[in-house]
Amino acid sequence: MEKIKVIIWGFGAMGSGMAKMLLKKKGVEIVGVCDRNEKRVGKSIFEVLGVENKNHNEVIINSDIESVMSTKPDIALVATDSFTEKTFPKLKQLLENKINVISTAEEMAYPKAQNPELSKKLDEIAKENNVSVLGTGINPGLIMDLLVVCLTGCMTDVEHIEAERVNSLSPFGSAVMEEQGVGITVDEFEKGVKDGTLAGHVGFKESINMIGDAIGWPVEKFEQQMKPIVTNVDRQSPYGFAKAGNVAGVNMTGQGYVDGEVKIDMKHPQQIEPEMEGTHTGDYIRIKGTPEVNMSIKPEVEGGLGTIAMCVNMIPHVINAPSGLKTMIDLPVPRAIMGDIRELIRK
Amino acid sequence: MEKIKVIIWGFGAMGSGMAKMLLKKKGVEIVGVCDRNEKRVGKSIFEVLGVENKNHNEVIINSDIESVMSTKPDIALVATDSFTEKTFPKLKQLLENKINVISTAEEMAYPKAQNPELSKKLDEIAKENNVSVLGTGINPGLIMDLLVVCLTGCMTDVEHIEAERVNSLSPFGSAVMEEQGVGITVDEFEKGVKDGTLAGHVGFKESINMIGDAIGWPVEKFEQQMKPIVTNVDRQSPYGFAKAGNVAGVNMTGQGYVDGEVKIDMKHPQQIEPEMEGTHTGDYIRIKGTPEVNMSIKPEVEGGLGTIAMCVNMIPHVINAPSGLKTMIDLPVPRAIMGDIRELIRK
Repeated sequence: MEKIKVIIWGFGAMGSGMAKMLLKKKGVEIVGVCDRNEKRVGKSIFEVLGVENKNHNEVIINSDIESVMSTKPDIALVATDSFTEKTFPKLKQLLENKINVISTAEEMAYPKAQNPELSKKLDEIAKENNVSVLGTGINPGLIMDLLVVCLTGCMTDVEHIEAERVNSLSPFGSAVMEEQGVGITVDEFEKGVKDGTLAGHVGFKESINMIGDAIGWPVEKFEQQMKPIVTNVDRQSPYGFAKAGNVAGVNMTGQGYVDGEVKIDMKHPQQIEPEMEGTHTGDYIRIKGTPEVNMSIKPEVEGGLGTIAMCVNMIPHVINAPSGLKTMIDLPVPRAIMGDIRELIRK
Repeated sequence: MEKIKVIIWGFGAMGSGMAKMLLKKKGVEIVGVCDRNEKRVGKSIFEVLGVENKNHNEVIINSDIESVMSTKPDIALVATDSFTEKTFPKLKQLLENKINVISTAEEMAYPKAQNPELSKKLDEIAKENNVSVLGTGINPGLIMDLLVVCLTGCMTDVEHIEAERVNSLSPFGSAVMEEQGVGITVDEFEKGVKDGTLAGHVGFKESINMIGDAIGWPVEKFEQQMKPIVTNVDRQSPYGFAKAGNVAGVNMTGQGYVDGEVKIDMKHPQQIEPEMEGTHTGDYIRIKGTPEVNMSIKPEVEGGLGTIAMCVNMIPHVINAPSGLKTMIDLPVPRAIMGDIRELIRK
């Protein structure tokens, strides 16, 4: 059997991380990379990644997706956007070329939540072309949704779900510092929330609807809040600095209402150097019902690596899936790939 | 759409627990129960369960499976055995009557591990009759295998897996006390291990092979050990008593070898009143690799309720599955059923 052919669209932190991971796996090859950043176009992926090319074909970063698609890949990893509406034309183009797709766009983890019409279209286009499309990542995609769903599997009855992800932004670069408002004043933060320049975490609506639909709790109302985490001490991280009194990060909270009350409760404070004020990072799932489940992962699963792994690890499941738009609750559980990827592909 | 019709074979703690759970769910009905215990045969399930029949059809416990199968059920829940070989004739009979099956037999969670030939036969019989068969439960089935697999999904590389389940036997009845050797002397314990009358936990070989196959680590050698947990103080539980110096439970350990070393490590101490000597119960998964994952569930997920829930909650997945023998790594993630089961069935 030939190696599984992968193309990557978007060669930033996520796309290039997936390339690095793929280069270490058996039975798979990267046949093309599309990226529009002038600093990268025309360069070898090995040069950009800073890794030696051991026995892999050469791949030159190309800004023209048509040319990248002409390599006849089995699957495309798309790491360019956070929002379904923005990434939709790219996904459409790939699907129409009969290429399976995995998207890192947070909203694509459960696109029905915000864009039911585009979801329907993606499902139709994928089916017409006999391929599949999935959105995934660490969160949404696993920690605050699929893992919650999985843990309810051992419960006879569920009363209330709380998912909390307390993570550190310290490992992230300047782009994330800016997106999350690290270092700005509280006034600037409030302005950024109002005018939409501060995104915070994208994914609560997706996670809440995924859980609700999975366990049979139709979500009738969704709300979310975004508050500054104001530091009392100066905090310095490799790419961020927050002076005492300024913003060290964002505290996102979200609620899903079922039968008139909050039954799915999400808490996601993200900040640089949380330990400086006694905050310990971790992922927590607390499910009330029968029997109760109180899970914690300490420290939290690292977001960047986690998203990279989820996208690459889902490749066999997406290739094997019946055609259409898929979500994490439709497919078998994710798993690491330590053997030859081809052995996981059903004919 | 008609309600999903379920029969239950074996009306002990597990079978009757599933019946209680099913009676609270929408879109499903119990159409028959087979049990050979003379105390139960001929009685109404509502009498045996001690619950009021609110609007459900009457079900009289019958010792004749042919008669129970004549109700034309969609699925059978079989809670009679721990071992594949012993439960095989029952599963065969059900499958040949075109009935989907979920089995609580621990070995059926990954029957290939101990009985590759019977597994192949089950797969063939299921396919010939266009139905599916799954083995599941809390452990094997979720805590020490599927959940481990799921957590590796966010990892780019896995180096070593440790799963530990520290649980209390205090909630269990006299049958479990006897099986696990609670209250006997250390000599009696050693004798019971030698002559096979003490089973301990059944499932390590299944869990280890499930994980290995899922992530591409073929397990080349499997070992397990069974040691007495000797108490230093008198311990009393509702159905058990262990005098100081005698056995309060069983410490099971198991190892899966991959590439010549132990890469999958299992620890499962079970005892009455663990807190009396400072042991805190919980489920722990520690995975070395990139990124590392350190998960804990405290206290441990209750085994009895967990197994009942897993079996009932997998009903829609088994009915929807393509025909054949399935394991938890083939199907979508388990999930609680809070709505109408029929809405989860694909036509």
